Amino acid sequence: MVVNQMPIIDPKNFISSKARSIGAGSNVESGFYNWTLPTEIENPITLSAGIPDAGSMPVQDLQNALNSVLETFRNESLRYGGVQGFLGLRTALANKYTLAENHEYNSEQFLIANGSAGCIDLICDAFIEPEDIVLVEGPTFSGSNRTILGHQAEIIQIPLDDHGIQMDEIIRIVRKLQNQGKRIKMLYTVCDFQNPTGTVLSAARRSELIDFCRSHQILILEDSAYSDIYFTSPPPPSLFSMARGYGVLRVGTFSKIIATGLRIGWIQGQRDFINVITQVKFDMGNSPLIQRALAAYMETGKLNIHLDTVRTIYHQKCQMLSDTLTKHCSEYFRFSEPRGGFYLWIECLQGFHASEIRELASSKGILFPLGSSFFLNGDKDDDKHLRLAFSNASITDLASVGPGLESVCKELIM
Amino acid sequence: MVVNQMPIIDPKNFISSKARSIGAGSNVESGFYNWTLPTEIENPITLSAGIPDAGSMPVQDLQNALNSVLETFRNESLRYGGVQGFLGLRTALANKYTLAENHEYNSEQFLIANGSAGCIDLICDAFIEPEDIVLVEGPTFSGSNRTILGHQAEIIQIPLDDHGIQMDEIIRIVRKLQNQGKRIKMLYTVCDFQNPTGTVLSAARRSELIDFCRSHQILILEDSAYSDIYFTSPPPPSLFSMARGYGVLRVGTFSKIIATGLRIGWIQGQRDFINVITQVKFDMGNSPLIQRALAAYMETGKLNIHLDTVRTIYHQKCQMLSDTLTKHCSEYFRFSEPRGGFYLWIECLQGFHASEIRELASSKGILFPLGSSFFLNGDKDDDKHLRLAFSNASITDLASVGPGLESVCKELIM
Repeated sequence: MVVNQMPIIDPKNFISSKARSIGAGSNVESGFYNWTLPTEIENPITLSAGIPDAGSMPVQDLQNALNSVLETFRNESLRYGGVQGFLGLRTALANKYTLAENHEYNSEQFLIANGSAGCIDLICDAFIEPEDIVLVEGPTFSGSNRTILGHQAEIIQIPLDDHGIQMDEIIRIVRKLQNQGKRIKMLYTVCDFQNPTGTVLSAARRSELIDFCRSHQILILEDSAYSDIYFTSPPPPSLFSMARGYGVLRVGTFSKIIATGLRIGWIQGQRDFINVITQVKFDMGNSPLIQRALAAYMETGKLNIHLDTVRTIYHQKCQMLSDTLTKHCSEYFRFSEPRGGFYLWIECLQGFHASEIRELASSKGILFPLGSSFFLNGDKDDDKHLRLAFSNASITDLASVGPGLESVCKELIM
Repeated sequence: MVVNQMPIIDPKNFISSKARSIGAGSNVESGFYNWTLPTEIENPITLSAGIPDAGSMPVQDLQNALNSVLETFRNESLRYGGVQGFLGLRTALANKYTLAENHEYNSEQFLIANGSAGCIDLICDAFIEPEDIVLVEGPTFSGSNRTILGHQAEIIQIPLDDHGIQMDEIIRIVRKLQNQGKRIKMLYTVCDFQNPTGTVLSAARRSELIDFCRSHQILILEDSAYSDIYFTSPPPPSLFSMARGYGVLRVGTFSKIIATGLRIGWIQGQRDFINVITQVKFDMGNSPLIQRALAAYMETGKLNIHLDTVRTIYHQKCQMLSDTLTKHCSEYFRFSEPRGGFYLWIECLQGFHASEIRELASSKGILFPLGSSFFLNGDKDDDKHLRLAFSNASITDLASVGPGLESVCKELIM
């Protein structure tokens, strides 16, 4: 048979440089870095992924909204919803931000995609070329690193301190790159309750950062995933509102404030930026049914009530984790208690290797990722941090983290 | 104020070559080419988009499935569903194809994304580089042309006849390109009830095409959007099944068989191809709730019953449109009656310009796209075809298309 002698099509001969840029074995290989080591303990305490408290999810309200939308908009909710997303949801988002930031926004500034991850992918599609330089916080959300690297950009990490990304470091690095004749295209920042460190960029640095980026023609990508999840008082005004949207693209998501499985995020930007992004959106949009249900849910005012509830929940959880670690592990760990978000960022003292702690903790049924997952070069950059996500664990589980990790550290010292 | 003197960030200085490649004014500019001219007629007859019959959509069954999934899998249905998509839906799809094609498929060969448009985008991300050559049918679905051009590939259109894409033309063009030292990366084909022409690739040409592409190391992208929508008998075996999946990626979707707003499509490919595609999937997947609901719907066997229903509906609609045009317009139009799908592809006779017919028809309340929308260079390539989508129009509306277009043509002759 002639057919059998023909060469098989081997994907290796077809793979794009985009796909190759996310290489096997890299720290951002799968987008779902192996944060959870295997454990033999039955019901382990899981402090891994940044997912909402399961009990808090407004399942009944979402279900009611879905049913009402399907009954009222039988056809429209099951038909193509348009590339920019359902107008009603974009209007609800514009209203939300207008109210929160005391500045008039409109639906034309918004575009809906698959979560903020999908939004960041689209922004890279529209504005990032191979070899462009993108500045990110070091450490930062590994999924965003993966997306940016997937667009073949060069990532440079800027260190953080307790007040967020360090301006003097940005200035130094940008100057150095410009001396080399290189252009910096974009800066990606999670300035509110950052993932993984929990830090908030100070108000002073925010205006400095905007001025600096504008004068150096660096586009700012502001990831607001956690902005609404403050414990007692909101973070400083967003970069987007301070800059009146000029030179800033903001991405937001329902993943952290309602449920990660909604897969609905949004980009907010000046109309001319949104226009460019629609040029590279080829997937005909995502589910108008879910977009309509979320709009209906928001229009009832229930989102605001829900946000108050979850702020209290995460504040309590954070407090519990923080208290138990302070009580049991303060000789071993240092951390700043965050004022919002999902994460406690732990620095291991006494020369502990984070990887050793994680391994032993896993064997005892406490699961969490290494801090190195959030650095570009993984454990080459860092083996002294841990990220503990308190958002999805129960209060009871969180209470036992202190004693658990205390015994881990004691065992490692012996 | 210093801030005001600073240069504003202008998107023009940031736009990627990917975004630029979908240029303003091109035939594929928006992905939603202006198919519908404005009309002053109140309820016009709309033969524009390829969307399912509204009455056929199994809204109640989908609603039941959504509710049952939300009640049974409260957490799982609202949490990240994984980059490859919900296993249950991939299994249901594998079972569907296994049964239909009498060949064992498995869930690992499937990946779920936002409709087949999202799937084609991902395939281009994974395998297409700027300047790669992609062969497509001429004419073909404009959205796919847009996606391929958006990946900066060069598209070459291969003409069709009544038996589908012309093999001798492919052979001639590939030889010519190879003589120029150029490599052809991919061939995109809608071989079943093609959009826009309704043609079916003959069984003989299918095996010729597979052999030819394999021997020339051309990856086949088989778009199966309409494969299930046959009127009396199914199309010949798919390229994917004939090739046992080697060198073929097949995309499918629920958009045409259930509802376009589900935004759920799938890629089927050999495991090593699917692995590459997961490398460039950055959006953390789409809604697991809808994926689970569809799996539940399929598991009840209701999809098969639904398919039988819609086949009858579209057959009747096609017949009605075909009959009325034959009766009223056979001096002006030539067409082959399709054996499935959503479209009638009309060739205008007597030197009529399609654009003139469309304009006058619109003013009388009959709306449809020009055939030129499906060619790469629009009306430079073609001004003699029309595409009439019968899928969403009512039988009554369809019955009046013949007399309506007859009067248009008569008026144009005068």
